[in-house]
Amino acid sequence: MAEAETPNRSPEIRKDKIHNRWVLFSPARSRRPSDFKAKSNPQPNNQTECPFCAGHEHECAPEIFRVPADSTNDWKIRVIQNLYPAVSRELDFQNPVSLVGDIAVSGFGFHDVVIESPVHSVNLSDLSPAQVGEVLLACKKRIEQLRSCDSIKYVQMFKNHGASAGASMSHSHSQMIALPIVPPTVSARLDSMMEYYKQTGKCSLCDIQPNELLIAESAHFISLVPFAATFAFEIWTIPRDHSSHFHEIDSEKAVDLGGLLKLMLLKMSLQLNNPPFNLLIHSSPFQDDPSNAPSTHWFLQIAPHLSGVGGFEIATGCYINPVFPEDAAKILRDVRISNNNI
Amino acid sequence: MAEAETPNRSPEIRKDKIHNRWVLFSPARSRRPSDFKAKSNPQPNNQTECPFCAGHEHECAPEIFRVPADSTNDWKIRVIQNLYPAVSRELDFQNPVSLVGDIAVSGFGFHDVVIESPVHSVNLSDLSPAQVGEVLLACKKRIEQLRSCDSIKYVQMFKNHGASAGASMSHSHSQMIALPIVPPTVSARLDSMMEYYKQTGKCSLCDIQPNELLIAESAHFISLVPFAATFAFEIWTIPRDHSSHFHEIDSEKAVDLGGLLKLMLLKMSLQLNNPPFNLLIHSSPFQDDPSNAPSTHWFLQIAPHLSGVGGFEIATGCYINPVFPEDAAKILRDVRISNNNI
Repeated sequence: MAEAETPNRSPEIRKDKIHNRWVLFSPARSRRPSDFKAKSNPQPNNQTECPFCAGHEHECAPEIFRVPADSTNDWKIRVIQNLYPAVSRELDFQNPVSLVGDIAVSGFGFHDVVIESPVHSVNLSDLSPAQVGEVLLACKKRIEQLRSCDSIKYVQMFKNHGASAGASMSHSHSQMIALPIVPPTVSARLDSMMEYYKQTGKCSLCDIQPNELLIAESAHFISLVPFAATFAFEIWTIPRDHSSHFHEIDSEKAVDLGGLLKLMLLKMSLQLNNPPFNLLIHSSPFQDDPSNAPSTHWFLQIAPHLSGVGGFEIATGCYINPVFPEDAAKILRDVRISNNNI
Repeated sequence: MAEAETPNRSPEIRKDKIHNRWVLFSPARSRRPSDFKAKSNPQPNNQTECPFCAGHEHECAPEIFRVPADSTNDWKIRVIQNLYPAVSRELDFQNPVSLVGDIAVSGFGFHDVVIESPVHSVNLSDLSPAQVGEVLLACKKRIEQLRSCDSIKYVQMFKNHGASAGASMSHSHSQMIALPIVPPTVSARLDSMMEYYKQTGKCSLCDIQPNELLIAESAHFISLVPFAATFAFEIWTIPRDHSSHFHEIDSEKAVDLGGLLKLMLLKMSLQLNNPPFNLLIHSSPFQDDPSNAPSTHWFLQIAPHLSGVGGFEIATGCYINPVFPEDAAKILRDVRISNNNI
């Protein structure tokens, strides 16, 4: 575990230029940055009742595809429908309709699950870089299928790990929700990145100079703590080459990203005591205006949950982060992972 | 406990016109709306180590004022500095400065605590309407003091109840953070309310027709479940008379609000098994443009935490709510509170 000495810092309010929002950095008086650990990470269910385990496929909602495609009991990845979907694939999408004087649309969309391993106890970070790459390519394949539905405007990929990060199943899985709207945080991000492009002539993510915020890099990606990180020890992994959509990733880059993602998850888990976390892929809408292409750049975010989201964050949209990004980056950079784990 | 029969509903995506954001309503297949309960609500600390209790005043950060002003050991409310502030009252506010090519300002501001009772085990809902009114008037007094600081643009009042809603102390208290910026969610709310005003010539909250969303009302306030509630069983309490700022409240209205707020907290606690929750006051910035006055209307929000915030919500700003507002309102309306509790 890294025990870096970190300088005393004064509170600072930083602007996240990608999301156009503010984050309050308030160094905790009582703890050093290297003392932050998850207190506990209760898991939502156990193996005896797990429908995601091999042999329990009949307990799940219908399968969409599996990897390898021709496998039977020896599948490695399954993409299935969510049994309790947030949106319904059975509804026809209707244009917005006025209801009780307000605005509502039918809850049309797709809510799918990617089971990342047939084995209950295997985490994403336990897989090899090539296997993590296969999971990413399964997500790419499903997103490309969803793209063929004209009513779908945006697909959000996310992984919830641990009950307090929103997981209702312990078995390693990711989810994607395909929506008939572009969500507000996505619109705000695209607007903000376009504003940066208009001001500088550059893509805001291509233009990042990580310097002391760098954690590690690979052939095609860099991992860093963002300048105005919303969460303590938050990590962004960004493609070096400009690319608007995650689903543009190819096999070589998927394996390369698989290795770097595995390394980030191992570092985070070791340093922060296997914390609850969200893993998010921030991509661009499908029918995005081509004039947005120079300013939009997809990236992957890992958000550890070391404290609950409170009323201040809900009310203001400002987050309070007790760990300065420079300190978090140094600590994560210094965490040593044995080669046996890579 | 209310056990209302509720109709089957299809998923719906509704627009919150006050915040200009979308909420996904997805009726859970497995549970009736009346079955939603908090699983547990762990409290963050116990009485033996509580600095907010009477007799432990010396363990706290400096006091700002107490109620009554001339009380000694018999105080009823104390307003104190936060020992671990998110912003620092000791920093001079500077204009935004460029730092590492990004934007940051010094973390100037005030972070105060309102201790609502000298007794550890007393919740806000245990106080009489007049006593809740006194707490609201103490908040008003402190906000008026903060208003005299030219650098402060907005004060966010919030109460976190329960560890998973962000509370680090069990002893009943509220907090306020005074900021040198107008937070993004507040700006978005003001813009959205102005847009409604431009389209209709009316204030969006004055124009609400609660109908089946109504829970209860008092002489000066109404309590309802909003049409596009972000959280299951969320409650808004809105002044009947148009008013931009919470600190415009007078003593009579504070006691009236105290009674309705107490009723809402008791109904929520009884129906949902004392859930973790946030209580938020949404007001307007201090130096707000006078042309905004016709469209801005303060209100109070109670947000129960019945499930964790997951990656989808963080990534998209869209929340998933499994309980339709009409069903939540009926259930809360039907919860009977004994007169002994009022």
